[in-house]
Amino acid sequence: MKTRKILLTEQEIPDKWYNIVADMPNKPLPPLHPGTKEPIGPEALAPLFPMELIKQEVSADKWIEIPDEVRFIYSMWRPTPLYRAYGLEKALDTPAKIYYKYEGVSPTGSHKPNTAVAQAYYNKQEGVKKITTETGAGQWGSALSFACNHFDMECEVFMVRLSFDHKPYRKVMMNTWGAKVHASPSDTTEAGRKILEQDPDTTGSLGIAISEAVERAAGSEDTKYALGSVLNHVKLHQTIIGQEAIRQLEKAGDLPDVVIAPFGGGSNFGGLAFPFLRLNFEEGRKIRCIASEPTSCPKLTRGVFRYDFGDTVGMTPLLPMYTLGHNFVPAPIHAGGLRYHGAGVIVSQLLKDQLIEATAHDNLEVFEAGISFARAEGIIPAPEATHGIATAIAEANRCKEEGISRTILFNLCGHGYFDMKAYQDYFEGKIVRHEVTSEEIATSLSELETPEIS
Amino acid sequence: MKTRKILLTEQEIPDKWYNIVADMPNKPLPPLHPGTKEPIGPEALAPLFPMELIKQEVSADKWIEIPDEVRFIYSMWRPTPLYRAYGLEKALDTPAKIYYKYEGVSPTGSHKPNTAVAQAYYNKQEGVKKITTETGAGQWGSALSFACNHFDMECEVFMVRLSFDHKPYRKVMMNTWGAKVHASPSDTTEAGRKILEQDPDTTGSLGIAISEAVERAAGSEDTKYALGSVLNHVKLHQTIIGQEAIRQLEKAGDLPDVVIAPFGGGSNFGGLAFPFLRLNFEEGRKIRCIASEPTSCPKLTRGVFRYDFGDTVGMTPLLPMYTLGHNFVPAPIHAGGLRYHGAGVIVSQLLKDQLIEATAHDNLEVFEAGISFARAEGIIPAPEATHGIATAIAEANRCKEEGISRTILFNLCGHGYFDMKAYQDYFEGKIVRHEVTSEEIATSLSELETPEIS
Repeated sequence: MKTRKILLTEQEIPDKWYNIVADMPNKPLPPLHPGTKEPIGPEALAPLFPMELIKQEVSADKWIEIPDEVRFIYSMWRPTPLYRAYGLEKALDTPAKIYYKYEGVSPTGSHKPNTAVAQAYYNKQEGVKKITTETGAGQWGSALSFACNHFDMECEVFMVRLSFDHKPYRKVMMNTWGAKVHASPSDTTEAGRKILEQDPDTTGSLGIAISEAVERAAGSEDTKYALGSVLNHVKLHQTIIGQEAIRQLEKAGDLPDVVIAPFGGGSNFGGLAFPFLRLNFEEGRKIRCIASEPTSCPKLTRGVFRYDFGDTVGMTPLLPMYTLGHNFVPAPIHAGGLRYHGAGVIVSQLLKDQLIEATAHDNLEVFEAGISFARAEGIIPAPEATHGIATAIAEANRCKEEGISRTILFNLCGHGYFDMKAYQDYFEGKIVRHEVTSEEIATSLSELETPEIS
Repeated sequence: MKTRKILLTEQEIPDKWYNIVADMPNKPLPPLHPGTKEPIGPEALAPLFPMELIKQEVSADKWIEIPDEVRFIYSMWRPTPLYRAYGLEKALDTPAKIYYKYEGVSPTGSHKPNTAVAQAYYNKQEGVKKITTETGAGQWGSALSFACNHFDMECEVFMVRLSFDHKPYRKVMMNTWGAKVHASPSDTTEAGRKILEQDPDTTGSLGIAISEAVERAAGSEDTKYALGSVLNHVKLHQTIIGQEAIRQLEKAGDLPDVVIAPFGGGSNFGGLAFPFLRLNFEEGRKIRCIASEPTSCPKLTRGVFRYDFGDTVGMTPLLPMYTLGHNFVPAPIHAGGLRYHGAGVIVSQLLKDQLIEATAHDNLEVFEAGISFARAEGIIPAPEATHGIATAIAEANRCKEEGISRTILFNLCGHGYFDMKAYQDYFEGKIVRHEVTSEEIATSLSELETPEIS
């Protein structure tokens, strides 16, 4: 019998995270102070993050040890399985070999707990009693709730009101792990009250929710804030994914020609791709790493490399990123995790240096890919995950056209069991194409005060 | 590092199902014709089931080979992990060792595909083009949809209207695998139309849905019907669970003192327990096997052993079962899979012969157990699964009181990601105790025309 799932033992869970910064030919540019436009140092982050995470954020060390306690929590779901997609290969009638790493087996159904657990651990070590965060679709808020519950810390989540009203079950999931969840904007913060005064019926935004979570953390001695993507230490923690995948492919006697992951802020993509880029750096391999984004939020494929704010309101440091402008409002696609205007700093530098590639797929195309996948492989993917599937299918079809067998690996970053409304919309014909015009992007970018980085 | 998950390779997926009938000291009594009250033979089942499944239904062979093709489909999610519940043990501060077999990793989130795939396979082998079935909460309908999609067969599901309206996402899941789903009663069958004429606003029942599915199958040459529990061949297919668990516990150097599973019709319980009962039969071991049912539907703990109908309407053969009477209407608890008036024939005979035990838990108690489990182990259990957890916790607490370390194994038969409404109700204080009075049971049983079996 052919083997579908390549498994590792818990003893094979990697004991170090890989810090790609150590191997990058051009290091990321520094963040700038939003007022002075001068580079800022790590100390500026101290009110929000514990010292150990700040050290990781700016570290140049190639390997960072994973604490045993974190590895033991990881063992609740890790190592995650690597699947050979025999069903999909057959459905596509492709000569390609397709593998996927399945992160949906985690307690919250995505890759997010990989960093949530690490972040909660370091906060606990430094005596933090409560962590605040924002969440859009709910994946990140769920992951942090799970992690805080494990360490007996409080967790307070500001959930964008639109999602709060439309996705009540993500809230219930967070409650199950003991978290307190507010619809954002809420009347529990200055920022929230100010917005509510102006517009009592607002549906909220990620930018507002970030402001509320940051305000709550900044105002209390024993409370910190946590972010689920974009930052360097978040991507670092996710490299557990790619490291496991390399070991699993070695067991299968294979190495990929193409590595693919969905792209929101970069932790999904970086988590899978960075360890393969290490092989490119160290061994001169030519593994193509492709970030897959929605055409409705095309910062990598149509944005510019420029200093921009991480949030909509403009409270964060200025970061060097591929961006559509912090005021860009993506269409309300179901892949909420990919609706972010900018790309993390490391990924942006790698793309600028042509060490990675990017591609974009339309909303309707990814749902068709997701349903083909569900029928062939039995797993219903999260809307975010369908972007990686669509790119993998495109690459597999190219193999067929060219009559070449390549090995393709993609990150199936989460299941869609909390996203069935999206599939319902698809079956009811409500999923539509979303074109972004060049004018829209130009207008959004014209509001930036910073110049393009050459 | 301690090992949480005991895994098997795909090559270790058992290649035979275990038929406990071969080892039972008292064989199950025959089904009776509903009209003549005479024993009926296998040929009576031919309009509804393919011949190979009918053979399995009446087989006395101890081992039945699993076709390679079925094993390969199983490998999409099997072998399922066996977890050592370190988190729960710590939370309970118990000297007991607790293990659970996690069937929620299947594509539909429960143990149901184990038999759905086998049933679809044999139907396909015999040229069947379409399978019909009923579903309540939606677990079984989802599993059969998944299985039929794999074999490129049509699947038509009659879903109790109450669930159809309240659980739209289960319907969308079935649609994703290409199944056609009707709210039952529907206007597509005689039975459905008749009920709708009498009561256009009916919320339906499992009994009505069975009538519709059976009518559709009986009226067509290339259409058959499938059932998700109760019958012997269904329990047979589920024995893959217990067989894997034995191999996994052997790897861990352990053998359980107590084996626990939730009880609806018996396939969940039989699937885990029967292979352990084999060890009792063959090796004289004294492993206690406990079926865990809701106090609101207590057929094993408060019912009688009697011939009764399998459905509410009274269309099926009379089966020798522990029953509350086929007109018994259980309270609308969230564990819809356990709301069935009778127990399968094999389990009923085993209970009568005191070879297994039964226990019951109140609705509120099981939710408390479920939330403790989710916090300690990170998996949110299905409402059905919380019954097994509640029994395991009770046994572990007894170990603590007695100062004895026993090894406890239970079946975590499914995750609760489609049941978050139930948890929401819990947090909102809407989950209440359901007492069944002795009068209610006596009234329901008084409507049976058949005598108690001594």
